[in-house]
Amino acid sequence: MASAQYLGIDVGGTNVKMGVVDAKTGKITNFYSHDTASWRESGHFMERFADAIAVELYANKDVKKVGIGLPGMINRDRTVPLEITAIPELDGVPMVDILTKRFPDVEFFLENDANAAALGEFYFVEDMNDENYIFITLGTGVGGAAIINKKVFVGGDGNAMEPGHIPSRNGKVLERNIGKKELLDLATLRRSEFRGKTMLSDDGTISTTGLVAAAAEGDALALAIWAEVGEMLGDALVTMVRILDIKQILIGGGLSASFDYIMPAVNKQLDYWLTPYYKKSLTVTKATLGNDAGLLGAASLCF
Amino acid sequence: MASAQYLGIDVGGTNVKMGVVDAKTGKITNFYSHDTASWRESGHFMERFADAIAVELYANKDVKKVGIGLPGMINRDRTVPLEITAIPELDGVPMVDILTKRFPDVEFFLENDANAAALGEFYFVEDMNDENYIFITLGTGVGGAAIINKKVFVGGDGNAMEPGHIPSRNGKVLERNIGKKELLDLATLRRSEFRGKTMLSDDGTISTTGLVAAAAEGDALALAIWAEVGEMLGDALVTMVRILDIKQILIGGGLSASFDYIMPAVNKQLDYWLTPYYKKSLTVTKATLGNDAGLLGAASLCF
Repeated sequence: MASAQYLGIDVGGTNVKMGVVDAKTGKITNFYSHDTASWRESGHFMERFADAIAVELYANKDVKKVGIGLPGMINRDRTVPLEITAIPELDGVPMVDILTKRFPDVEFFLENDANAAALGEFYFVEDMNDENYIFITLGTGVGGAAIINKKVFVGGDGNAMEPGHIPSRNGKVLERNIGKKELLDLATLRRSEFRGKTMLSDDGTISTTGLVAAAAEGDALALAIWAEVGEMLGDALVTMVRILDIKQILIGGGLSASFDYIMPAVNKQLDYWLTPYYKKSLTVTKATLGNDAGLLGAASLCF
Repeated sequence: MASAQYLGIDVGGTNVKMGVVDAKTGKITNFYSHDTASWRESGHFMERFADAIAVELYANKDVKKVGIGLPGMINRDRTVPLEITAIPELDGVPMVDILTKRFPDVEFFLENDANAAALGEFYFVEDMNDENYIFITLGTGVGGAAIINKKVFVGGDGNAMEPGHIPSRNGKVLERNIGKKELLDLATLRRSEFRGKTMLSDDGTISTTGLVAAAAEGDALALAIWAEVGEMLGDALVTMVRILDIKQILIGGGLSASFDYIMPAVNKQLDYWLTPYYKKSLTVTKATLGNDAGLLGAASLCF
């Protein structure tokens, strides 16, 4: 018997991507991407969005479940987007109701995109057997999700897990210390300490890719920056572990390319703060889905 | 119709207290307390404990549910104590199985005592209608629990919510900064700064009761200590709110007597760190059950 086929939809600020995902293999077919801006400008975002879904469903009659990842806050029942800053016309729209009326024999599942991506790791990564894990994304901000018993942990009012906004050093929240822009500023600021010991220029052109590449070659400034990032991230991970009692941590997002260079400092902090109950089974690994994380994550909402 | 009667049992390191609790009014009858040590010394803790339950059940034939609060870690299924440092002979004992065999028509519910006490606030405090809240106990340590949808949040592996162990200032976890002993040490250490401005003596006799009483009279040192406690507690509360998306917080435990003197600093930190989504509905109040919190909390496990 063929395995189930789900439609996964990753709604982003730049593109809306959709594709039919094989539940067993995670293979994506019928991939379709449309730019978000033109649907917004039409003044009929929901209609255009539903039309695109109609085309996919018409071409794939076996698909009876659709998962949708949205970049923002959703109501507790997971039926209505509340605050989608990239597509504000969706705020308050009863999306699941509208889609269910138009496609009565299809089930729709909404979720925050970081939460969906976290769930995707469980269903589509081989050897990923942990039912409980913390998923952290490093990028412009620091996002997060917790999976407990294979389900997205939504907390009290539906929007749990904002690790980027917990208090960190210097009177700043975590992502204002280790977000992409902030760590580049830090590199520029600390450049003078490493005169002669770094290949990174002080002309304001340091990039995160450059910082990763430099660290790979042992550059002292780059290693120092990633160590500082790792320390602050490590402290935040300890806090999450203590509050959630979860011992598996996945690090994803664009800046997870720095994984090997932040981990020594992360481990140092875990070792400093945690007791044996946690240490004996705690693991921190790099997330693996990469570019398809959003679409596969959305499809995983259908399981 | 008479309301349901539950047996609540608060297992402590000093005493085991039990009583029949009226589900509607929270009135406690048939109260019985036995010192923990003599049961332990008998070498038959579980038998003596079960005998005491038998007496209560015999005298109260309507009781078909028993809630038990234990001071330590419990397995995820809530059937076996894992690590009860005050009564280590219970570690690994299949308590629910043993009791269910002896009392086949009675249901037993185990829970960590802080979690049970937190739940008790929901069921036995009038006007307590929040289904989601964070419960913090201030005392020798800093304990905590989260109630989500009226249920104890157990996290990934069953032992969520250890706010006392999250990283705080000076390279110390929270309870090593604001636990009872630590805040008294702090008061002694800072005494000299307040020469002539404090009634508190520097002969090492400062007590927490004395610190509360002094604060009530406007003592500068006492107010400074509680402000420092409030700042660190406030930062930790922000972290919990951001991770759990819970906006109601209850403060209990022996040191909650300082509530009025720590709150200005707590509020300052909440105001500094949080965004409108949280601020508009966040409340921090003092827990109300006091001395009966343990027993009523245990009974509330039966709901």
